This record gives sequence, structure tokens and C-alpha cells, in this order.
Amino acid sequence: MQRADIIYAFEEQEGRKFMRRVWGKRPTFAVVIGNTETAKIPGVSAAGAVPEITDFTPAADVELLHYGRCKCIDGVPVTPTGVPTPGIITMSALQLFPMPTFAINSGVRVRPHTPYFEMEGVPGQDIRTGRALDDPRRVYENGVLLGKELAKSSEYLVVGESIAGGTTTALAVLMAMGYDGQGKVSSSMIDNPHSLKERIALEGISNSPFSREEMRADPLKAVQAVGDPMMPAAAGVVAGAAENVPVIMAGGTQMAAVMAIVAGLSPGSLRNLVLGTTKWIVNDRSSDVRSIVSQIGSVPILAADLDFGPSVHEGLNVFERGLVKEGVGAGGASIAAFLASQGSVDAKLMLAQVEDNYVRLMKIMGK
Amino acid sequence: MQRADIIYAFEEQEGRKFMRRVWGKRPTFAVVIGNTETAKIPGVSAAGAVPEITDFTPAADVELLHYGRCKCIDGVPVTPTGVPTPGIITMSALQLFPMPTFAINSGVRVRPHTPYFEMEGVPGQDIRTGRALDDPRRVYENGVLLGKELAKSSEYLVVGESIAGGTTTALAVLMAMGYDGQGKVSSSMIDNPHSLKERIALEGISNSPFSREEMRADPLKAVQAVGDPMMPAAAGVVAGAAENVPVIMAGGTQMAAVMAIVAGLSPGSLRNLVLGTTKWIVNDRSSDVRSIVSQIGSVPILAADLDFGPSVHEGLNVFERGLVKEGVGAGGASIAAFLASQGSVDAKLMLAQVEDNYVRLMKIMGK
Repeated sequence: MQRADIIYAFEEQEGRKFMRRVWGKRPTFAVVIGNTETAKIPGVSAAGAVPEITDFTPAADVELLHYGRCKCIDGVPVTPTGVPTPGIITMSALQLFPMPTFAINSGVRVRPHTPYFEMEGVPGQDIRTGRALDDPRRVYENGVLLGKELAKSSEYLVVGESIAGGTTTALAVLMAMGYDGQGKVSSSMIDNPHSLKERIALEGISNSPFSREEMRADPLKAVQAVGDPMMPAAAGVVAGAAENVPVIMAGGTQMAAVMAIVAGLSPGSLRNLVLGTTKWIVNDRSSDVRSIVSQIGSVPILAADLDFGPSVHEGLNVFERGLVKEGVGAGGASIAAFLASQGSVDAKLMLAQVEDNYVRLMKIMGK
Repeated sequence: MQRADIIYAFEEQEGRKFMRRVWGKRPTFAVVIGNTETAKIPGVSAAGAVPEITDFTPAADVELLHYGRCKCIDGVPVTPTGVPTPGIITMSALQLFPMPTFAINSGVRVRPHTPYFEMEGVPGQDIRTGRALDDPRRVYENGVLLGKELAKSSEYLVVGESIAGGTTTALAVLMAMGYDGQGKVSSSMIDNPHSLKERIALEGISNSPFSREEMRADPLKAVQAVGDPMMPAAAGVVAGAAENVPVIMAGGTQMAAVMAIVAGLSPGSLRNLVLGTTKWIVNDRSSDVRSIVSQIGSVPILAADLDFGPSVHEGLNVFERGLVKEGVGAGGASIAAFLASQGSVDAKLMLAQVEDNYVRLMKIMGK
């Protein structure tokens, strides 16, 4: 009997088929990190206590996964109200079911104190300029090559991301490619600043050197104008790996935007993909990941049915109220741990592990 | 019957045991690239048509493995007399038995047009200064972490190198650590310039800020003084991986120097190692890899019994006369292809594949 704490949120039948394909198989986990100046626009991101510190968040997340603690910052990344990074969930999943874990640098300002794959990308500019990136095609091509190599040594791949400000760039790229994304991307905050994100996206699109038609025809032009560095790297790795093995795209609406890029550049890859996210994303009333994915294709959405309600820790309870929700591949890594362990890792065990890590890390932070 | 075209050149019984352990298993191939200014001292290296071009050789070798041709240079790296890089052998082995292939940048001046693992190292200075590297410990630690991750997704690991000038730094580090290396390191040239290498090594050791005792007690001090960036990265990857899986250290006397570093920092790793090299190294009268390895421990030496004598191509025949000999993990990759294919890839097939590649690449070069 193949049972796991997973919600089949979209294309249930195909989603269950995918679950059976990878049941008990051994995944590799990759997390694509990057930075965009867009994260520093006031009100955009909660992936750091103050906007400037979002430069450190992706590197700190990677260190957390490798060492169980951060090196480039004291403590762990937190929101302005002190809620910890979703990387604490990813780390817990990787502790409960160890899998090879690789960071992929698509363009960060702060490099992690760990080894990582270098994709020769650069940090993204404020997308309001319409000139976010220099050469996403080279990064995409490096990603395809890397995805193919990773697929040779893994039964399947889980690809997550850590980039602050990423839902705003996701909205902009979806709109630039002609998707209806307005009001549909999620947020790490409880009050999702949709109108701010839309203003930023529209300003970037109107300042882009490319016409709407050009950006609809070529996803990498949309990315170059109003995307972030994570996108071409993640899209390349996903497309390259999915030629040969199943891939869980681990994330919420940001990963849905990456999926739209993959659909444009490598449509044949879609048959090997699912979106793997959290319950907090698929239950979120302020965003609509199903609507975005359904515009792309019939790709299943699986959600880890995590429940932090029973926790005694306020910093974890708030996940149930919609703070943070997803990131660092938290949902996809949890799903991979559930499936690889054939259900012996479940939501209850995950909460216990997350609580242990939370207590340990808060102690380090002197809280 | 487990038969392969392998010469058991040292510790035969343990070598055959290792062969049986990995027979039919699936390896991952990693190649550590770096640069040292030492390569530009006249007379030191033949890994490039002129000394200045040795900066490009490691990046070009990696591109050759990934794309079957180079991108950062026209054609392929050649010696001053036009003999191609041993990367052509490695590439042929990887074509005959595809394995996941990753480049690891320990500190290059020219980056390959491929994804690669970044170890946060820097290119090495001329070792005559006695101050070759800044922070080999960080690179070593990154290597250990990476080796552990790679070991999680591979049944065993093959670790090669590409760094011009590497036998001179190998001699210097062996001497600094108290090994008897004089007259024992090999050369890509037919006439091995032992006295030049020894003068360079001695000058570096005498200019080192560390005492002989300090460098004997801590291999990373010897590396910092007179080593090259490849060494701490390769030593770390080997030590980290060998905690859990078998490792073929793919190279000749350069890799023997890396083995000496591993022996000092992680002696328990030795039981999981072999040196995997070519016939041209173990048969070389101008160097003595057995003597170096025997000073380190009872680690087997396996050599791919390649034979380029029957080739109609002068550029390949010369390998039999001792030009080039080894590099880019040529011997270890060949051994891995022999063992992983359970003997169906052999020396004869390798020569045919190398000849095909040679003809194709010479055509690209217009020769």
C-alpha cells in the first residue's frame, strides 16, 4: 500500500501515477540560489529581517542544509517578525531521509561557505529597469548540461530555489510571456502586496527593450527583461534532467513561472514533471498556483500535507496562518522524503524534526 | 570471469580485491582543474603549445569532456610539438561508458564554458616564492563536503586533475612533507627536467614562511607554501568520498602527491583508495610512482594497459615513446570504463575510439 501525507491538488490521476513511479526511489536534491535587486524595493520581500539582508538569505539557506547552521550570518534567515526560513523544513526533510544535496549558484551577491555549482550568471537588476539580466541563455544552457549530468546519477531530481523577491519577478515573467498571473502569485507575507507587484511588473515590461511579441515568442527574452537569475538556471536544470528522469519542481508560484519557461523552451520535458509544494501554497486564498499551472499544461501539483498547528512554538504555528508558506524547496523536499522512505517519513515526524531544529537554532540565536 | 586490460603495478593482491569490489558498479567521474604560475617557468610544462597558453588547458580539457570539442580555444590543447591533450583518452573512455562527469574549479585563470563546482580557491603563485596559495584549508574543507555529497549518489568515485606544471608542484610538496621525491615525478616531456624541478622546489621550500617541521606536521602548510590549487581540492574530495565509497585517484605522480596529503589529513581514507593511471606512467624509466606510493602506504596502483603502438597516427604513436603519458584522469577513466563495462570496453576499443576522436579533432584544427 503506497500512502504518504500528500495532497493531490491538480491533475490527481497523473499525480498519483508520478508518485508510484518514484516510490522508494533515490532522489538528488538541488537548490538554485540567486539574488535580485528587486527584493530591496520596500514591501516586496519578507525573506530577511530588513531588505538589505536578503542578499545573505540564499547563501545562509544553503549553509543550513549542509551544516545544520548558517556561517555567513549569525543564526538563521528570519522574516521581519522573526519567523524562520522555510529552509528549516528542507533541512529537516534531508535529515530524515538523507539525499545528495547540491547548491547551484545562478547569480548571488553573497556566496555560501560550501561548494556549489557555478552557472556563470550574475545577480539580477531591479526589474523596473526592464533590463534585469545580461545573458540568461548562457545560464540556461549551462543548466541543461548540468541537469543531464545530475540525471545520470539519480533516479529522479528535486529542484528547489532560494531567491528573495522571487514572486514579484515570477509575476513579471508570467505577464511578459502572456500568462494571466495577476493576483495569482503567492507571498511570504500574510497580506500579499498584489498591486505593488503588478506595478513593478508593468513598469519593467514597459521599459523592456523587447516587444510583447518577442517576449511571448522567447521565454529567455522575458527573463532577460524582467526575470531573476534563478529562472534560467532552474529552467535549464529541469529541462536537461527531465529528458531522462522524473523531476519534482520544488516550489510554489515561483516554480510555476519556471515551468512556464520550460514549457516554452523544452515542451517535451513537461511529461516528466510535477510541481511539488506545500499545503500552505495550495490552500492559500491570496494566490492561485492551480490557475497558473493549468495555463501551462496538465502538470500535476503535489503538496506536502504538513501541519504545524500542533506545535507549541509560535514561530512555527504562524506557518498555518500563511506566513512564509514555501521556499528552499521545502514542500518538494518533504514530498521526496515521504516517497523515498516509502511513507515511513510522514508529516508528524517532520513536525517533530522541525521543532527539534527550531529549538536548537533559536538557542544559537540566543532566543 | 573478471578480466580487464589492467596492469597491477603495486600491491597486486589488494588491487585485484579493489577491482572485484567495483566490477560492474557505476562510477562518477570528477576532474579538478586549476592553474599555477609555476607552469610558465620556461622548461617546466608541455601542457600547451607555449607557456602562456597553459592557462587555457584545464578549461579546454573540461569542455572537451562535456562537448567533444573545446570552446575557449580553437582545436584542442597540444604540446609544443602538436601532440594532443590526454583529455582525448578520457573523453573516449567516457564516450564508451558514459558516467556522470563533473568539473571542480580549484582555482583557474580561465573558466570553462560548462557548469562546474566552485571551491572558492584561487590560481597558484609561482612556488619559488614559497607563498603559493592563500587559504588551502577552506578549499580542502569544501572538497571534503563535496566528496561526501558525490559519494551519496555514486557507487564509487574517479577523481582526475588538469593543471599544467603539476609535477613540479608535486615534487615540491612531497619534499616539503619529508618524502623522497627527487628524480621520481614524471613529466609530459620525453626528457624529464628533474634538476630544473628540484631547483624550483628547493627555492620555494627555502622561501616558505613555515619551517620544515611545520610542513611535515601539516600537509596543508606544505601545500600553502609550494603546492598548487588542485591539491587541496582533490585531497578534500578524495578524503570526503573515501569515508563511504571506493575512490580511484586518477593520475600519476601528481595524484601520488595528493595521496600523501590525504594520508596526512585523513589516514583512515587510504583503505578505500587506489591510484589509477596509465601504462606509460608505470613503465616510465624517468620517474618512479611506485617508490612515491610505497612511502605513503600500501595503496594499490592500477594502470590501464593502453597500447597506441598499432595506431597509424604519429600524434598517438608518440604516447608509446613517453610523451604526455597521463592527465585529465586518462588512466583512471579508462580503468573505470573497463571495470564498469565488465570488460566489454578494452584497450583495443579504446584505441579505435581515440583514433576516431583524433581524426575528428585534427580535422577541426585543419590539420
